[in-house]
Amino acid sequence: MIGSPGGVVIEGLALHWIKQMMDYPESAGGCFTSGGSVANLTGLYSGLINKAPWIKSDGLFGNKKPLVYCSDQTHNSITKALLLLGIGLKNIRVIETQEDFSINIDILKKTIENDKINTDNFPAIVIANAGTTNTGAIDDLKALYNIAKKNNTWLHIDAAYGGFARISKTTASELLVDINLADSIALDAHKWLFVPFEAGMVLVKNREDLKHAFSENADYLVDTQSVSEYQLMVNFWEYSFPMSREFRGLKVWMLINAYGREGLSNLITKNIFLAKYLATRVEEHPDLELMSSSELSIVCFRWRDSDEFYNKIIEKIQKNQKYYVSRTKLKGKSTIRVCIVNLKSDTDVIDRLIQEIENIVFTLAT
Amino acid sequence: MIGSPGGVVIEGLALHWIKQMMDYPESAGGCFTSGGSVANLTGLYSGLINKAPWIKSDGLFGNKKPLVYCSDQTHNSITKALLLLGIGLKNIRVIETQEDFSINIDILKKTIENDKINTDNFPAIVIANAGTTNTGAIDDLKALYNIAKKNNTWLHIDAAYGGFARISKTTASELLVDINLADSIALDAHKWLFVPFEAGMVLVKNREDLKHAFSENADYLVDTQSVSEYQLMVNFWEYSFPMSREFRGLKVWMLINAYGREGLSNLITKNIFLAKYLATRVEEHPDLELMSSSELSIVCFRWRDSDEFYNKIIEKIQKNQKYYVSRTKLKGKSTIRVCIVNLKSDTDVIDRLIQEIENIVFTLAT
Repeated sequence: MIGSPGGVVIEGLALHWIKQMMDYPESAGGCFTSGGSVANLTGLYSGLINKAPWIKSDGLFGNKKPLVYCSDQTHNSITKALLLLGIGLKNIRVIETQEDFSINIDILKKTIENDKINTDNFPAIVIANAGTTNTGAIDDLKALYNIAKKNNTWLHIDAAYGGFARISKTTASELLVDINLADSIALDAHKWLFVPFEAGMVLVKNREDLKHAFSENADYLVDTQSVSEYQLMVNFWEYSFPMSREFRGLKVWMLINAYGREGLSNLITKNIFLAKYLATRVEEHPDLELMSSSELSIVCFRWRDSDEFYNKIIEKIQKNQKYYVSRTKLKGKSTIRVCIVNLKSDTDVIDRLIQEIENIVFTLAT
Repeated sequence: MIGSPGGVVIEGLALHWIKQMMDYPESAGGCFTSGGSVANLTGLYSGLINKAPWIKSDGLFGNKKPLVYCSDQTHNSITKALLLLGIGLKNIRVIETQEDFSINIDILKKTIENDKINTDNFPAIVIANAGTTNTGAIDDLKALYNIAKKNNTWLHIDAAYGGFARISKTTASELLVDINLADSIALDAHKWLFVPFEAGMVLVKNREDLKHAFSENADYLVDTQSVSEYQLMVNFWEYSFPMSREFRGLKVWMLINAYGREGLSNLITKNIFLAKYLATRVEEHPDLELMSSSELSIVCFRWRDSDEFYNKIIEKIQKNQKYYVSRTKLKGKSTIRVCIVNLKSDTDVIDRLIQEIENIVFTLAT
């Protein structure tokens, strides 16, 4: 018996629709998670157990050392996950990015070739970003897939922020078309599918990899085992780390029901066009400097001035509570970071944000 | 800046009250988690990093192998957590339990002494149950503390189910008085503090151990760093694995506000007395066999008959949807398991449950 059979079916349906958005096969499995951190952890652990199956019995000891590859723009939840898994910072190969903040494929190839000389190690996992938290950069997914395939590594894509742009009517959808080549994908409906958190999720191409990683049995769990006849009647604790869990999938199921894939596609497309509008406004502005734009919805820019000044501008914007912008550093420079993922945002918000920044600078300068 | 300063303060207050219930020092830290699984994982990882600090840089490789000790009644989320951490089944020492299902202290001592002969290993973590999922057995916490202290291991207590009975007016509160000797404690307000899940939590005696395990920084996180002047203004992502999170603490804060420690103490005490009432009814019943009772609120019993028959009884009870009982195995025998954690349960529910079982058996027999 399952604790909440109706909830399980609804979550299964929501995941099914998301799988379709990613063009993932029917054999794929998945589950909802608190957010991107746990989604990344779940995908990475599935990959680790697939590539180093001795870990469950022996632990990481007395065998080849698994190495993991990702770019210097990778979200720090990936680092946290790999440390939790016992991999260690020294075994995470942080690869430089190119001018557009996507991973440098040549350096990655050379690093892997170099690592393979030492047979105490083996390349276990390659991580792709789609897109990065800082700027929305999307790694070359096809190239990373080929590298992963050639070296027999797991390919995990952190698409927590950008993944849903695959269904948009923009260039982003082309850059994301190969997302289905991944062995696992982390997604966050609370990032760019317009629902409140927690609505993270992980998809794994072969659902058996998830089950192999997470299914452990016990006498008192007899009443919670999966009913194998019904494909949707899965017990999600067998496909993820936690046991009891909230009914996170309901809001995602309702959202897709209400808007449909087409409606969501239009909303994401609008966000991306708004980001392009903001980038254009910044470029045209005499005092603003565009630091990054991407095919997604993040735009980074700065007032042509010192870092100290910048922090004051951002803190003032945040204190005024009309716009939630954040700050980051790009190529050593502090920048204002705008990420447009609200379905109600429109061009007037962009215009007013720039006006607000002008006013703040004017006040700070006088 | 913190995303939700009000929420953080309320969660901090709720955790503060829970710390007081456990007589934990002010220096203790903690956070809400989805449930017991993540609470256990969080406590165990903090302990692992404390005892094997090289793991963050080197991973588990090229150093002494950490060994973990727990009883054969330990919840399988502990196993899942240790596998996720890369420890491996072979390095988990599963210690036999006594007649009352608590860990056999002598066997534990001998096992540790024996393990210490091989200096490639070291005893890293001792896990105590308070109480077990199967029967509510509480390990000898003082004895385990002394063993942990002598061998310089971390002491983690899985008190997800039983911990809150420490504030009850029963023998359980005496058995749980030494819970504050633990280095970390997993608790679940959705188990025995009458709130719906998810409301797990972990407390760590020295909050710096949590922070050392989980705090990782990044350029785009400048706006989310802890404001050190205000002790309650912590960023919980620095004290746990996930980053964004729901406001889980609100319901716990409201509950403690509404009932007070005294009110909650009375409710838990009532549950324990109900369990004793059920155990007495079972013992007096000619056809029922008491399989376990404890100082907490779990009672296991069986009809004097075969396993096959049992499954039918339990499935019928579940199908009738008046009582949610589960099943487990004790000493090789299938048993009905009743866990009383509902604040509205009273003696009439117990009487009707026994009546229901009699009716089901009568129907099955005819």
